[in-house]
Amino acid sequence: MLHFIRNNFFSIKNNIKSNEIKDIIKDNLINERFFSNFAIKEISSFNIVRNHSVLFLEKEIETDLHNFKTVIIITNNIKIFDNENYQNVLLVKNLKEAFNNIINSIFSHEDILDYHDEFDLVNNSYISKKALIHNTSKIFNNCVIGKGVEIGKNCIIKNNVVIKNSIIKDNVIICDNTSIGTTGFGFDFEKRGSTNLNPQIGIVIIDNNVHIGSSCTIDRGKIDFTYIGKNSMIDNMVHIAHNVQIGNNACIAAQTGISGSVIMGDNVTIGGQVGFAGHIKIGKNVVIAAKSGVTKNISDNSVVAGFPAIDINIWKRNIIKAKKNGH
Amino acid sequence: MLHFIRNNFFSIKNNIKSNEIKDIIKDNLINERFFSNFAIKEISSFNIVRNHSVLFLEKEIETDLHNFKTVIIITNNIKIFDNENYQNVLLVKNLKEAFNNIINSIFSHEDILDYHDEFDLVNNSYISKKALIHNTSKIFNNCVIGKGVEIGKNCIIKNNVVIKNSIIKDNVIICDNTSIGTTGFGFDFEKRGSTNLNPQIGIVIIDNNVHIGSSCTIDRGKIDFTYIGKNSMIDNMVHIAHNVQIGNNACIAAQTGISGSVIMGDNVTIGGQVGFAGHIKIGKNVVIAAKSGVTKNISDNSVVAGFPAIDINIWKRNIIKAKKNGH
Amino acid sequence: MLHFIRNNFFSIKNNIKSNEIKDIIKDNLINERFFSNFAIKEISSFNIVRNHSVLFLEKEIETDLHNFKTVIIITNNIKIFDNENYQNVLLVKNLKEAFNNIINSIFSHEDILDYHDEFDLVNNSYISKKALIHNTSKIFNNCVIGKGVEIGKNCIIKNNVVIKNSIIKDNVIICDNTSIGTTGFGFDFEKRGSTNLNPQIGIVIIDNNVHIGSSCTIDRGKIDFTYIGKNSMIDNMVHIAHNVQIGNNACIAAQTGISGSVIMGDNVTIGGQVGFAGHIKIGKNVVIAAKSGVTKNISDNSVVAGFPAIDINIWKRNIIKAKKNGH
Repeated sequence: MLHFIRNNFFSIKNNIKSNEIKDIIKDNLINERFFSNFAIKEISSFNIVRNHSVLFLEKEIETDLHNFKTVIIITNNIKIFDNENYQNVLLVKNLKEAFNNIINSIFSHEDILDYHDEFDLVNNSYISKKALIHNTSKIFNNCVIGKGVEIGKNCIIKNNVVIKNSIIKDNVIICDNTSIGTTGFGFDFEKRGSTNLNPQIGIVIIDNNVHIGSSCTIDRGKIDFTYIGKNSMIDNMVHIAHNVQIGNNACIAAQTGISGSVIMGDNVTIGGQVGFAGHIKIGKNVVIAAKSGVTKNISDNSVVAGFPAIDINIWKRNIIKAKKNGH
Repeated sequence: MLHFIRNNFFSIKNNIKSNEIKDIIKDNLINERFFSNFAIKEISSFNIVRNHSVLFLEKEIETDLHNFKTVIIITNNIKIFDNENYQNVLLVKNLKEAFNNIINSIFSHEDILDYHDEFDLVNNSYISKKALIHNTSKIFNNCVIGKGVEIGKNCIIKNNVVIKNSIIKDNVIICDNTSIGTTGFGFDFEKRGSTNLNPQIGIVIIDNNVHIGSSCTIDRGKIDFTYIGKNSMIDNMVHIAHNVQIGNNACIAAQTGISGSVIMGDNVTIGGQVGFAGHIKIGKNVVIAAKSGVTKNISDNSVVAGFPAIDINIWKRNIIKAKKNGH
Repeated sequence: MLHFIRNNFFSIKNNIKSNEIKDIIKDNLINERFFSNFAIKEISSFNIVRNHSVLFLEKEIETDLHNFKTVIIITNNIKIFDNENYQNVLLVKNLKEAFNNIINSIFSHEDILDYHDEFDLVNNSYISKKALIHNTSKIFNNCVIGKGVEIGKNCIIKNNVVIKNSIIKDNVIICDNTSIGTTGFGFDFEKRGSTNLNPQIGIVIIDNNVHIGSSCTIDRGKIDFTYIGKNSMIDNMVHIAHNVQIGNNACIAAQTGISGSVIMGDNVTIGGQVGFAGHIKIGKNVVIAAKSGVTKNISDNSVVAGFPAIDINIWKRNIIKAKKNGH
């Protein structure tokens, strides 16, 4: 399992205890049930539950929470609140609002004005004193390597690249003007306006041998991480949103955009200017033709094209049929 | 009405008087009518007429020009020239050429080699000594904040961001590698080649609480301004061309491109990779599905999809019908 | 013919002779035929054959190789190997692998860790001491102008622009955050993974009066060059891949992507968000509507739209027909 220490990237602003959380959410609180009081140091997600954390739940998850004695659950779901297996639960009116308030109370992250860092200027690049860069790697000019960032062996980070909140493994090449690890575009769909954007406190993990082109953007995970698998190669101006997970050996052509929480298997091949709806799964060995719009899950070994993306043979037949009809 | 002082952003190169303009346009001049001579300090537009200015007119506008005694009109339209309500008029063969020559004669702007500025380096960011940045705002690293730029309270300007010719209000967040306020892509459609690109001398105004993602480009207005309304949120790699006006509470997903002079009402929701033709109007509360190509005006409260964008229910029905036809 | 001296951009790492090449490709070698031994200083391409070079051939080319006595041909094609007109030939199993190994053995290029350069900081821009910039040109802030780059007269290079491996002629304007001359996305289609990306050792040539918008990426040629013709104007976020050649007076709107080795005639007009398949030819005076996907050659004076792009009148008729069918 991929792992990271959030505290490396940004510090805890306030050391709070679980019973202080209701002071943060205030009028948003409907009901509470407490068995124990403990220090809060982390945020859990559906996928990774941690002790000494807050866990935000809209619905039940598979993880057996019995093993986590120091988790406080925040939910807007009365069934979860009534589930007696959960020991420490707060029922709230608005879960997104609770998330935003709690995250911003605990952590001092980059989108908050009190964020601080110390750095060196090397080759006119900003290198945080709290970044860990292997001495076989090379950072070109005008880059920003933020706090907590790790860069492995033999990496080449070209010019004007911004890397924050990220772990870059070995032999990775990142081309000019690319931005990795900034805040993504997660928000409360039921409310309008930028004040409903969720703070993002996850990271980006880029595995061995990945090649990333120029002017790409790879957003940090919301709570956990955005991940690019080994040996993957990504062309210019590719946008990869928060929580996306891409398998090994991906080949992604220019100007493709991958929405939040898309998960892809190994060996995907994606043409240029493809778009993906959020929260879908793409199987392994899938080929997606250029300019496709992928709106739902794609099973292993499929070859698709069009918008909405369908089997490429059907797509081609439709085009030939349209031509024959004298169009 | 939104207002700005052009002279803050770039200086007047030559102090000219209205009767000197014909020396600038030379052989382009066909006829002239002069009642008075006055100093020229500004350029007017269809929407904002200013005294002591030049106004370029292809056709009549609604503004009553009687109140503006110190406006000289340049037109290629004989009817406008013959309209005796207009006191100071020059009739020209080629209006775009006149625009280009006059602008470049009067103003010393960024696309001209004699442009000068003085700056400080703070956090390795270039900060013009003539920028006004509120002390509660934070500029990260390797940024450029150009001459005349105003940045309000509690703004966060991340890394490698370029902001020129812009007024940024309060609580605005701008993510890495974004460019705001550069010269847009306005040109003379009847002529070929980059020498027919128009100088752009407007600005960008970004209102309170706007969130702008990474690697976006927002071009300055041609004469007036490009505007992003309050609480709007814009994802990564969004392109917003000159003179675009976006209302409050917009939500615009990644890789969307908005052509010049598009005007949008409040509360628009726009998916990823959407494109807009220039000079169209999008009503309030409009929803535009991802990958749409919007070619004409969209009325309030519409939900559209496809290219050309149509009512989303019709678009969906067409797709289902195509499937049933054995496609 | 456009010409450049590769050695200006990156140095020869190892001075090798033709008979040493088989030591580089090792087990990849099947057979060899040698008439002479000579120093290797260059790489030839299908289009430009040079003496003292290696030439990689999959199939026969038109150039009469008799005039080139100091060219060693590497091929995976038995017919080429058996052609007795060719004096120095190595037959290999995998041509791409041979290309990668030989290039990386001879040249010290930017994607290799031992790359070195010396530079000055001017306006906080990195200017290689081995760049040639005309004193009438202006480089704004936080730029990188790499080794060997030439910039002609009266150019304006705005902020955070990266220019490497490029020759920029006169009166060129390049807007903020654009990347020119980085490594493109050429790879071995038969193998998966970033380790099969080909080293790119060509350059970019941008001819007189070209205007390039913000956040564009123009990749260097693989062996020769990517070329943008005189007076062309390119909007924001346009991606131009390796080996693309664009004629004079092109007009290319925002967010368009042009795949590798596309060749265009003069006076093309291309809307926004257009995509091009690789290795196709676009005639002169062609107009391509916004959002088109161009999949094959387009003849002179055509006007096309849609995906796959077809004659725009047919495309419009299809849309009207779809409407009439009650869709």
